[in-house]
Amino acid sequence: MRILFLGDVVGRSGRDALVARLPTLRAALRADLVVVNGENASHGFGLAPDMARAMMGAGADAITLGNHAWDRKELIPFLEQEPRVIRPANFPPGTPGRGAVVVEVPGNRRALVVNVMGRLFMDALDDPFRAVQAEVQRHRLGAGGTIQASVIDVHAEASSEKAAFGHSFDGLVSLVVGTHTHTPTADYQVLPGGTAYQTDAGMCGDYDSVIGMQKGGAALRFWRKMPGEKLAPAEGEATLCGIFVETDDATGLALRAEPLRQGGRLSQAMPAV
Amino acid sequence: MRILFLGDVVGRSGRDALVARLPTLRAALRADLVVVNGENASHGFGLAPDMARAMMGAGADAITLGNHAWDRKELIPFLEQEPRVIRPANFPPGTPGRGAVVVEVPGNRRALVVNVMGRLFMDALDDPFRAVQAEVQRHRLGAGGTIQASVIDVHAEASSEKAAFGHSFDGLVSLVVGTHTHTPTADYQVLPGGTAYQTDAGMCGDYDSVIGMQKGGAALRFWRKMPGEKLAPAEGEATLCGIFVETDDATGLALRAEPLRQGGRLSQAMPAV
Amino acid sequence: MRILFLGDVVGRSGRDALVARLPTLRAALRADLVVVNGENASHGFGLAPDMARAMMGAGADAITLGNHAWDRKELIPFLEQEPRVIRPANFPPGTPGRGAVVVEVPGNRRALVVNVMGRLFMDALDDPFRAVQAEVQRHRLGAGGTIQASVIDVHAEASSEKAAFGHSFDGLVSLVVGTHTHTPTADYQVLPGGTAYQTDAGMCGDYDSVIGMQKGGAALRFWRKMPGEKLAPAEGEATLCGIFVETDDATGLALRAEPLRQGGRLSQAMPAV
Amino acid sequence: MRILFLGDVVGRSGRDALVARLPTLRAALRADLVVVNGENASHGFGLAPDMARAMMGAGADAITLGNHAWDRKELIPFLEQEPRVIRPANFPPGTPGRGAVVVEVPGNRRALVVNVMGRLFMDALDDPFRAVQAEVQRHRLGAGGTIQASVIDVHAEASSEKAAFGHSFDGLVSLVVGTHTHTPTADYQVLPGGTAYQTDAGMCGDYDSVIGMQKGGAALRFWRKMPGEKLAPAEGEATLCGIFVETDDATGLALRAEPLRQGGRLSQAMPAV
Ligand SMILES: [Fe+2]
Ligand SMILES: [Fe+2]
Ligand SMILES: [Fe+2]
Ligand SMILES: [Fe+2]
Ligand SMILES: [Fe+2]
Ligand SMILES: [Fe+2]
Ligand SMILES: [Fe+2]
Ligand SMILES: [Fe+2]
Repeated sequence: MRILFLGDVVGRSGRDALVARLPTLRAALRADLVVVNGENASHGFGLAPDMARAMMGAGADAITLGNHAWDRKELIPFLEQEPRVIRPANFPPGTPGRGAVVVEVPGNRRALVVNVMGRLFMDALDDPFRAVQAEVQRHRLGAGGTIQASVIDVHAEASSEKAAFGHSFDGLVSLVVGTHTHTPTADYQVLPGGTAYQTDAGMCGDYDSVIGMQKGGAALRFWRKMPGEKLAPAEGEATLCGIFVETDDATGLALRAEPLRQGGRLSQAMPAV
Repeated sequence: MRILFLGDVVGRSGRDALVARLPTLRAALRADLVVVNGENASHGFGLAPDMARAMMGAGADAITLGNHAWDRKELIPFLEQEPRVIRPANFPPGTPGRGAVVVEVPGNRRALVVNVMGRLFMDALDDPFRAVQAEVQRHRLGAGGTIQASVIDVHAEASSEKAAFGHSFDGLVSLVVGTHTHTPTADYQVLPGGTAYQTDAGMCGDYDSVIGMQKGGAALRFWRKMPGEKLAPAEGEATLCGIFVETDDATGLALRAEPLRQGGRLSQAMPAV
Repeated sequence: MRILFLGDVVGRSGRDALVARLPTLRAALRADLVVVNGENASHGFGLAPDMARAMMGAGADAITLGNHAWDRKELIPFLEQEPRVIRPANFPPGTPGRGAVVVEVPGNRRALVVNVMGRLFMDALDDPFRAVQAEVQRHRLGAGGTIQASVIDVHAEASSEKAAFGHSFDGLVSLVVGTHTHTPTADYQVLPGGTAYQTDAGMCGDYDSVIGMQKGGAALRFWRKMPGEKLAPAEGEATLCGIFVETDDATGLALRAEPLRQGGRLSQAMPAV
Repeated sequence: MRILFLGDVVGRSGRDALVARLPTLRAALRADLVVVNGENASHGFGLAPDMARAMMGAGADAITLGNHAWDRKELIPFLEQEPRVIRPANFPPGTPGRGAVVVEVPGNRRALVVNVMGRLFMDALDDPFRAVQAEVQRHRLGAGGTIQASVIDVHAEASSEKAAFGHSFDGLVSLVVGTHTHTPTADYQVLPGGTAYQTDAGMCGDYDSVIGMQKGGAALRFWRKMPGEKLAPAEGEATLCGIFVETDDATGLALRAEPLRQGGRLSQAMPAV
């Protein structure tokens, strides 16, 4: 299966770039499954239902979230209707929405997508490792199994926690990819057990910024310790950032993992087709 | 000036790779200045004086540190004798060692190297922004100035704090590069004002690990919440990770910034020469 | 039922005072149930089995722990044999020991003791609120029930989290009392639903100290940001600190809550008998 | 000098109680100096200028703040005009307002009041210990000195940091008292060097609450990890909480320290007159 995962879409710049370029990109990569993290799409804070629809219309099969899941309240009822938009699985029992979805993929295949939130330097949710383990154990990966691929979006701050996720599920899922730092990492690899891994997918946003927000105001917050003006997303051209993985449908494991960086300020990277 | 910065050297794997390959690398890149972060050289925790000497013998002009600066107590008196090994500048007054050094560079040039520690999700040191500002303002950058280049190693957890550093000093220094997450980022760029920037240089260590430490024990710490065995560095072949920057001696600003990843598991990247 | 709860016993000073005075105190108060937090008994870090035995020998019916539960490794097998020494209930599945115990009380009565750890400004364990809820729901409180009293030791940093515990379980348990800050609070009260509450029981230790540790070295850590000498417990006379609660066996709820502070530097407080 | 310090005034309940009872209380205690922490007066978040005026009109000689200093923007220009309202001294250079004030006291005496914020589990400000040291060293304490008393409000989360403050300045100031946890501690004492100390003064607010806010909504935030309704202050009768200290004008050091708890749910405590 050919899987494209794109990191946190930030504001109008990120949304516009995603909606404009994803159709072409999906076709060029002949991607079977596209997953996008959308937690910052709405002016940097949350995701509105119409934005989710636009992103799915442009080719996203599933949308993941993170600590900004609840910033746009309209999303809460929407999560109940639209199973392809998922929030971290380790919110406490009774939280609206779901933490995982199984997506139909061309060729009579299915893929599991799970979203989870780390706890190091973040709010204390339920155990993310056991939450992912529970989702993964509900399915059988590979030819003849219930799913042919599985993607885990680990929305987390600390590189150590994400790496611990990669190794804990190495050989059990197709891809463990981090989000939340809004910075693409260059450590993409296929781990020894066959799971593709990248510590952070990076954001889909303007990289002349402080993690997507306008740099002047955002930097000032570190110099002054008073609330300033509300932060707004930077408006320059976005770089779409993510990881492309090709898996073996027989095993559900990764054959290769390559970075994607398209448009905007960052050095360009396009997976081989 | 041709500047190579290499991130946190972790354990024997990182040290051996650095000492073995830096001479060749320095020659191949015709680097004028090499800076290495050494805070994890000693079994993952701190830097011993003989390791610092070996790293300088192999071609490091200056060595920076971080939160592990004090893990090896022998380093404390060594810092007083060896000005080229620096610790974060924003420790409180009275802390042993120095936070900055001016290094002589071939061609009658000089370069300032500053080490500083972020505060987001880290211990509360003095203000890192004003600490760097003070160091930077002691010098005049460029032709006819007191220094022809300046490198700021921002040892910090949060991508936002590092990005705020990049923009705050854009146009004032040659390079702002992060360390501490042990994961190379792919956002290397020359910022609009002319400062080269990369959120994290990545580590010089084995990338089949949890940020350099053996993956089994390190991952287990996230599953069990009890102290386990002491963590030990992973022993596979290291990838040397860093950033290469070419600056204009007339302005001290960056002409280009390119990633370096040599050896080990990660995809290889070699700056153009 | 007459319940005495004493907070974190710190070092030799705390242990000696506890063992020497608890028999008299227990008799004077005609206490039916005595619970003691012992997580700092061993030189400030952990609890050794012989210390647990001495504390139980002096009159403790149950001993609770906290973030220092695992500092003395000998305690781990001991926890399996001695059900009256409990560790926080919200450690992950598979953790040695138990988070709750039912103690026999004179007069054919039984009391539930639960230990739990907060998460605000502490390590991320499982949900402490649902963990306590699960323990509480296993029993029926009051005359004709399975237990006639219940004590929850909330080992937590933040006053808000402890207060949230008090109100969440108000009317469902006999006493919610905090530990961990090593400072007795003066907000003891019976909440509107009938549960006795005090944000922190305070420590059993020398109050001419930094939360039980020698003040010179402990204060220095805030002035210097380098590891200093290992902290050691202060050795002056301890104040035993805690809360005394009288409950109605018919309902299991509190009739009154009064502070106890005996010996050492703090102002003395003795519950009415 | 007879000094009354009252902790964080929370919402209308706290303000009403303070304004109604402070005149009587001041007279009854024959207090020479009254200091009140006002950071939560405005619906729990910040302080409005008219509230500050009302509190001073009722007998507060100085008002301190904390992490909520900037929640009401109207206070920022007010701080420039009204030196008796102070914000933490360790905000970075350039922050509006002042961190200390010298107040005239009847009998031709003067008292220094300093406000400072801790850093453990809080935002990273400048070094609070050196900030207080600088303020303290500007004055000479005692008969013939420039001040006859000095009060340090340490607005901090961790009991260890506050205790370290007490011991660091023991013998150098009249009173070190903590605020911010909204919970009065029972560890009031005169330290060996002569400085009065209490880890937290407690709040002036309704104690049937979660640190002053309505208990239902505030407790729910620990059960659900989604933003709920905006928190509002509890509206029951407030307990005024604080510490009363009598000092020797010859030395500026404390002769006695006693708790004050007046009104509302908590057990009542009134200093001896
Ligand atoms: Fe994000
Ligand atoms: Fe996020
Ligand atoms: Fe490091
Ligand atoms: Fe580090
Ligand atoms: Fe403790
Ligand atoms: Fe503790
Ligand atoms: Fe407050
Ligand atoms: Fe506060």
